[in-house]
Amino acid sequence: MPSVDVPVALLGYGTVGAAVHRLLEEQGEEIERATGHRLRVVRALVRDPGKERGFSPADGVLTTEVADVLGDPSVRIVAEVMGGVDPAGGHVLSLLESGRSVVTANKQLVARRGAELFAAAAAAGAQLRFEASVCAAIPVIKVLRESLVVTNVHRVVGIVNGTTNFVLTAMDGGSSYDEALAEAQRLGYAEADPTDDVGGLDAAAKIAILATVAFGSRVPLDWVAVDGIEGVTQEHVRAAKALDMRVKLLARATLEDGRVDVRVGPAFVDAHHPLAAVEGAFNAVMLQGDAIREITLEGPGAGGIETASSVVADMVSIVGTTGTGFLQNDPVWRDLERMAPGDLGSPWYLQLRVADRAGVLAALARKLAVEGVSVARLVQQPASDAAVLHIVTHEAPAGRVEAALDAIRELPVSRGSQTAIPVVSQRGVEELGWA
Amino acid sequence: MPSVDVPVALLGYGTVGAAVHRLLEEQGEEIERATGHRLRVVRALVRDPGKERGFSPADGVLTTEVADVLGDPSVRIVAEVMGGVDPAGGHVLSLLESGRSVVTANKQLVARRGAELFAAAAAAGAQLRFEASVCAAIPVIKVLRESLVVTNVHRVVGIVNGTTNFVLTAMDGGSSYDEALAEAQRLGYAEADPTDDVGGLDAAAKIAILATVAFGSRVPLDWVAVDGIEGVTQEHVRAAKALDMRVKLLARATLEDGRVDVRVGPAFVDAHHPLAAVEGAFNAVMLQGDAIREITLEGPGAGGIETASSVVADMVSIVGTTGTGFLQNDPVWRDLERMAPGDLGSPWYLQLRVADRAGVLAALARKLAVEGVSVARLVQQPASDAAVLHIVTHEAPAGRVEAALDAIRELPVSRGSQTAIPVVSQRGVEELGWA
Repeated sequence: MPSVDVPVALLGYGTVGAAVHRLLEEQGEEIERATGHRLRVVRALVRDPGKERGFSPADGVLTTEVADVLGDPSVRIVAEVMGGVDPAGGHVLSLLESGRSVVTANKQLVARRGAELFAAAAAAGAQLRFEASVCAAIPVIKVLRESLVVTNVHRVVGIVNGTTNFVLTAMDGGSSYDEALAEAQRLGYAEADPTDDVGGLDAAAKIAILATVAFGSRVPLDWVAVDGIEGVTQEHVRAAKALDMRVKLLARATLEDGRVDVRVGPAFVDAHHPLAAVEGAFNAVMLQGDAIREITLEGPGAGGIETASSVVADMVSIVGTTGTGFLQNDPVWRDLERMAPGDLGSPWYLQLRVADRAGVLAALARKLAVEGVSVARLVQQPASDAAVLHIVTHEAPAGRVEAALDAIRELPVSRGSQTAIPVVSQRGVEELGWA
Repeated sequence: MPSVDVPVALLGYGTVGAAVHRLLEEQGEEIERATGHRLRVVRALVRDPGKERGFSPADGVLTTEVADVLGDPSVRIVAEVMGGVDPAGGHVLSLLESGRSVVTANKQLVARRGAELFAAAAAAGAQLRFEASVCAAIPVIKVLRESLVVTNVHRVVGIVNGTTNFVLTAMDGGSSYDEALAEAQRLGYAEADPTDDVGGLDAAAKIAILATVAFGSRVPLDWVAVDGIEGVTQEHVRAAKALDMRVKLLARATLEDGRVDVRVGPAFVDAHHPLAAVEGAFNAVMLQGDAIREITLEGPGAGGIETASSVVADMVSIVGTTGTGFLQNDPVWRDLERMAPGDLGSPWYLQLRVADRAGVLAALARKLAVEGVSVARLVQQPASDAAVLHIVTHEAPAGRVEAALDAIRELPVSRGSQTAIPVVSQRGVEELGWA
């Protein structure tokens, strides 16, 4: 089979871009053997062509003008690895409109402008692939779209942010939140301003994309109820351990009775659940569906070469499916409603700090009962100035639990923040025990 | 986009075959939406057309003659779900030679006759896909071939047999081997004759296929060094726990200095290793490579509907890549040598049972030293009639450890079987502690 030459271009030539170029060069034979095509970088859009680069392109490849990419009729596939919504979005749109297929590693772009970009791709008969936008090298998009095509996935639960999982793993080892975050920053897992990670915003973009693909319905970023890990304390971590659980920042998408719930927040995860064992900066995504029960994919969720390997795999997939009339563009084919955020049910762990005096327990129990929140297990511990109640509830809707907590916060005996954290277990709460 | 009609046939209509038919019918719209093609079962080869079936095909679909499938010019894709090497192999060969693409769920067929079948497929321009032959619904073949195309995977480590993992999980909970196996049989996880599972033969076929795909070199079934779980005792399970490890039946393929080692056998797996957390009848496969570090896929490794979902996904992938000149046939493109089975190095756990008298320890230590096996940790416990030594060694080649054990077995003080089990950890043996 004679090899087919496929000129490609890059938008951006930072860590990921250089790694894409290096993989295409160093693994060129491998790709050619598998596909009969040789992918060759002929253009790369950069801001500063004079900058020193780890893997240097040939003369004439670097350009500061996107017109040089758009205007090069030989370019068939473009990898967008520059990041940011602007100007990347405009560039990608123009390229798709011109019939070029695009691979993007840009989660914000896919989460915020997906509808428009997929429409442009479909209209032009081009492809838009985005595996690298979620969890780097873990091929969760491909598995959802190609392997689970007949599976009706109804739940996606993942640890999709490595920074927060590193911090929570360190806290599990005894560190305070501040110590753990400082360590993550020292090792390069967290940025100087860690807000996007610890606040859950990074995970929110990823779960919006995963939910959209899994359920076939557009899930906008503002549907995602977001809570970060800033409020997680050693007291939570220890309470989780006493229940044989781990505190994890979970991104969850649920399709129930035709309605979609998407949320990011800390959860108590049963130690026997596959996600409980995911440690450090790793990511994992569990897909639950009719035919498969559940499949979990775990691996590094970030990194230049890891992300680049996904970008290259998408480019190879485009080569492998071009001309088949089987375009993988907009995963959206229906229009599902959003579930009211308070409606999603789960068992809950409640940590209540109250004055240690007679009648308090009865007052708390009344506030829970009014909202229909039923206690499965309760342990009371003395603290220096108060009593701490650790409660596991039966399944209750998020909104009712929050209302009960609001009522408890208003009691004169309330001391401290009063937290509710969902419990994710494959066992019933009846089977949980305090250590 | 007008829908394209794709007549397909089934070889076999048992649990998996009926589930494939049901998925194609019930998920037909989903498939059509994703691919623009409608897959329709027009022929199904069975032994007894009169048999009662859970999901019945239309009149005229069932046939007892493979000639009816071969001779139907409308049939473009065939799913082989009858099992066994004969006559399935001959049928698949004829179908491929006639230009039909084939999807098979048959691990013995792929492991034993892969070379011949892939050659026939390539010659005829047809595809042979086999995702369901390994780990049912877990898409490890697709991920290896499509997502990790640029990754140079150098190690595959998996729990690929659900029966043995169920038994070992039950033993971890305190059951004896016999109790655990009886329970597995009662629940339908183990067959009345469990030899293929507990002896490691089922896992051997799967790791031979995985190694072939991962390394691009034919790995025949007889390269696999196979050990089962029949020799695993509660004493091993307890010793593993004392080291914060779990006993697992691992299938491992290693590419080292251009040579391939493939083996199945019990191993001590660090509790923090992703495979240690895989419980019950589940399967998981870890892929280690240059760009990805490691990716682990976990899910149900057996089951009719789970297997069928993989078969259907492969049929859909054939539809999606037909006519692109990007055929996914023989994954083999090079000819690697087999590593001598004794050469593979790892740390080891040794359990030695010897007469409890002066000078014995020195005698054992000499036998280990002669083979260059260096002790990292040692705990001696009294037993009723003997002393039991639990040893963790530094990395040593399998052959040297086996030779040392043979020498120890010949000592007059030897009492019992003397076992060596490899240790799989991401920590150094120095960091392991006895509980």
